[in-house]
Amino acid sequence: LEVSGNEILQVYSRTDHSANVLASKLNTNFTFNLSDIETNADLYIISVSDDALEQMISQIRIKAGLVIHTSGFLSMDTLSQTSKNFGVLYPLQTFSISREIDMKSVPIFIEANTSINLKRIKEIAGQISDNVFEIDSDQRKKLHLAAVFACNFPNFMYSVAADLLGDAKLNFDILKPLIKETSEKVQDLEPIDAQTGPAIRGDERLIAAHIEMLNDYPAYQELYKAISKQINDYKKASK
Amino acid sequence: LEVSGNEILQVYSRTDHSANVLASKLNTNFTFNLSDIETNADLYIISVSDDALEQMISQIRIKAGLVIHTSGFLSMDTLSQTSKNFGVLYPLQTFSISREIDMKSVPIFIEANTSINLKRIKEIAGQISDNVFEIDSDQRKKLHLAAVFACNFPNFMYSVAADLLGDAKLNFDILKPLIKETSEKVQDLEPIDAQTGPAIRGDERLIAAHIEMLNDYPAYQELYKAISKQINDYKKASK
Repeated sequence: LEVSGNEILQVYSRTDHSANVLASKLNTNFTFNLSDIETNADLYIISVSDDALEQMISQIRIKAGLVIHTSGFLSMDTLSQTSKNFGVLYPLQTFSISREIDMKSVPIFIEANTSINLKRIKEIAGQISDNVFEIDSDQRKKLHLAAVFACNFPNFMYSVAADLLGDAKLNFDILKPLIKETSEKVQDLEPIDAQTGPAIRGDERLIAAHIEMLNDYPAYQELYKAISKQINDYKKASK
Repeated sequence: LEVSGNEILQVYSRTDHSANVLASKLNTNFTFNLSDIETNADLYIISVSDDALEQMISQIRIKAGLVIHTSGFLSMDTLSQTSKNFGVLYPLQTFSISREIDMKSVPIFIEANTSINLKRIKEIAGQISDNVFEIDSDQRKKLHLAAVFACNFPNFMYSVAADLLGDAKLNFDILKPLIKETSEKVQDLEPIDAQTGPAIRGDERLIAAHIEMLNDYPAYQELYKAISKQINDYKKASK
């Protein structure tokens, strides 16, 4: 099968199930044996967990094809033993199976070991997204950490909010417009200029009342205290 | 001036500046003396900080008009000494001066001391928003606390991310599609089902690496540890 002008030779997966699903969608052959991987492909995209990647690369040898990984954390040089041509294509987004994503708007961060390989990866990335950026491994690692704060931690705060609402017999739905606007505000404003709430106002009385309300939720109480204190410190430091 | 069929008699503000701006926009008279407040209006909307509200209500006496406040935290009964008709109209949204808000989609939570007053407040709220809900003071207080977790804390996480990116010479803009998708995911999925990242995967190696990367940011390092631990505990508890 051709995808965007590229012929897909093979799919490898560690688990039979996901290999079957993907390979059948692509109408191509698949393997779950590392030793059966084609050695003569032009391009290898390794998109697995960081741990699995490091295990794989010691077991595969590729002739001269371009090998890329999609990890936010692992350095490009992790791939240096697999081929003389290697690089990275890191799409920055939160993916869940039940959500369709408009890939054209997903920023993709690329890196390569030579300028020729960079040009090839830029072409591939450009077929996927309209937002392609060249950054090095160190920057990518820091971006990946920043993304934990920008995505994973806010999502957990939504879980906490959902819990607290549940106990008040209120539906999480009523918070959705607020969550939406909070994320849209920082599309235009600097986050610190968008900050609202008791901690940035220094409303000590309300903070104390909230902390007391959380007596039955010691874990959330601890978070409330720690984050409120840091918002207040941040405000003082930026004055 | 008439606003949605209501005649605005007067604007009071504690500060000359904001009173001037609002009153001139409404083309009505204004005062910054509590003792000059009209006593015969049908409706009084008190939208000030919680502290200011409690100071005000001991100083104003209203004949029979309906008095409402817009606080998420203060109970309805705070107003019982001002008039025999009182209630609450609490719009749940994060407001910043430089952002226009589509008020029709902002949920408004109402409460009143009598069913007649509730009907009147429902009419007023319905002129502002399409999402009007009746909840009691205790529920509103819990909703207000949940909103700190759903809005103020995620926004601070964006600030932390912006800081980390700045040090890597990366622009905050590159995180905006991720922030947007993270908030849009929970419009459809339960927050816990939308959770991604190292903590929910139990990726101890990556968590340790991130903590080490934050050695120069002790405050953010503390947050990273505390939130990651709670995500992991949450996962275990929900299994």
